[in-house]
Amino acid sequence: MANDEKMYISYNNIHKLCKKVGYEIIAKDERPDIIVAITGGGMIPARIIRSFLKVKGQKNIPIQAIGLSLYEDMGVHGDTENIGKEVIRTQWLDFGSLEQHFDSLIGKKILIVDEVDDTRTTLHYAVSELQKEVEEQQKKLDRLDEPTQFSIFVIHNKDKPKKAELPKEMMESGHYYAATTVGDSWLCYPWDAEDIDEHTKLAAAQGNI
Amino acid sequence: MANDEKMYISYNNIHKLCKKVGYEIIAKDERPDIIVAITGGGMIPARIIRSFLKVKGQKNIPIQAIGLSLYEDMGVHGDTENIGKEVIRTQWLDFGSLEQHFDSLIGKKILIVDEVDDTRTTLHYAVSELQKEVEEQQKKLDRLDEPTQFSIFVIHNKDKPKKAELPKEMMESGHYYAATTVGDSWLCYPWDAEDIDEHTKLAAAQGNI
Repeated sequence: MANDEKMYISYNNIHKLCKKVGYEIIAKDERPDIIVAITGGGMIPARIIRSFLKVKGQKNIPIQAIGLSLYEDMGVHGDTENIGKEVIRTQWLDFGSLEQHFDSLIGKKILIVDEVDDTRTTLHYAVSELQKEVEEQQKKLDRLDEPTQFSIFVIHNKDKPKKAELPKEMMESGHYYAATTVGDSWLCYPWDAEDIDEHTKLAAAQGNI
Repeated sequence: MANDEKMYISYNNIHKLCKKVGYEIIAKDERPDIIVAITGGGMIPARIIRSFLKVKGQKNIPIQAIGLSLYEDMGVHGDTENIGKEVIRTQWLDFGSLEQHFDSLIGKKILIVDEVDDTRTTLHYAVSELQKEVEEQQKKLDRLDEPTQFSIFVIHNKDKPKKAELPKEMMESGHYYAATTVGDSWLCYPWDAEDIDEHTKLAAAQGNI
């Protein structure tokens, strides 16, 4: 699908893609201890994949939201050099409240969720900031030998040059989950649809149902 | 629909119910300054309604997530007296990061979103804790004369005796938005569906499409 073509995605298609990756993670016995949803785009896939990561007799996996926006998407003027590279944090993990469940993120399996890996800028920011935070906690608590596992789940990865990288070990160890890889199309997500019946028909015509 | 009957709801039905309330809010010229999503249930309706609260030329409304769970749903043993009344906070507002957008919540329009108003316990907790927080900020900053508006949006309100109340002025001034009121049925949300095609068919058969 070319750059200027619109790709319509139905809710049921999103649901099936979340299910696919949820099953993959469970099959690998890598159920996360916590899901970190990047708002707004990650909220819907995060909630859906949680259903497929459920294990009978286990509590729901806690979801924490982090708010990240690119300056360019906020309509805020930035340095032209840095356009697309600068990320605004609008919400961060709440370690205070997390402590009711965890002492920290140290040694845990953390699944970071967003809807799309476009330029990779936001995901890069999320992973590196979370890693930094865990390292600081490790030093503070003198628990340097407990490895923490970061994974990423996105519905769509756009096959295009990226502006930022993700950790090599994450990519190579199979902890980067893209339910599907697409061209550099214009992705029309259902939650942005004005007329959802019309949108669903367009998605069905493209097989994204 | 009786207590023991299952009510199946499709994603497109959820979308339409969010749209209905979004339009209602815009028609009243009461676009919120911030959306507070109660995780996990409120995440999907919060993201969808944001699309319908968008005004051309305006930035997206920021979403903050707060994590609230009833003790009983967590599988944690509590005092039997207090079962259903006790709420666990797993994440709270991040005022630090909010400050990039706001100085505080004082004087703002705040829309709290959850999927269902069942016993009303969680919503009561959310509103009263947020109100307390704003009052403390008002005292601290000596800004006692700026009224803050709290509204609630839920997809479904269950018509049943509630275990907790919401502020009288909110209910009477039309700031409690339930897209639809249902009996005390078992609500089957699409994000919990194992087989989404089958689920959608069942929802269609009940007219929830």
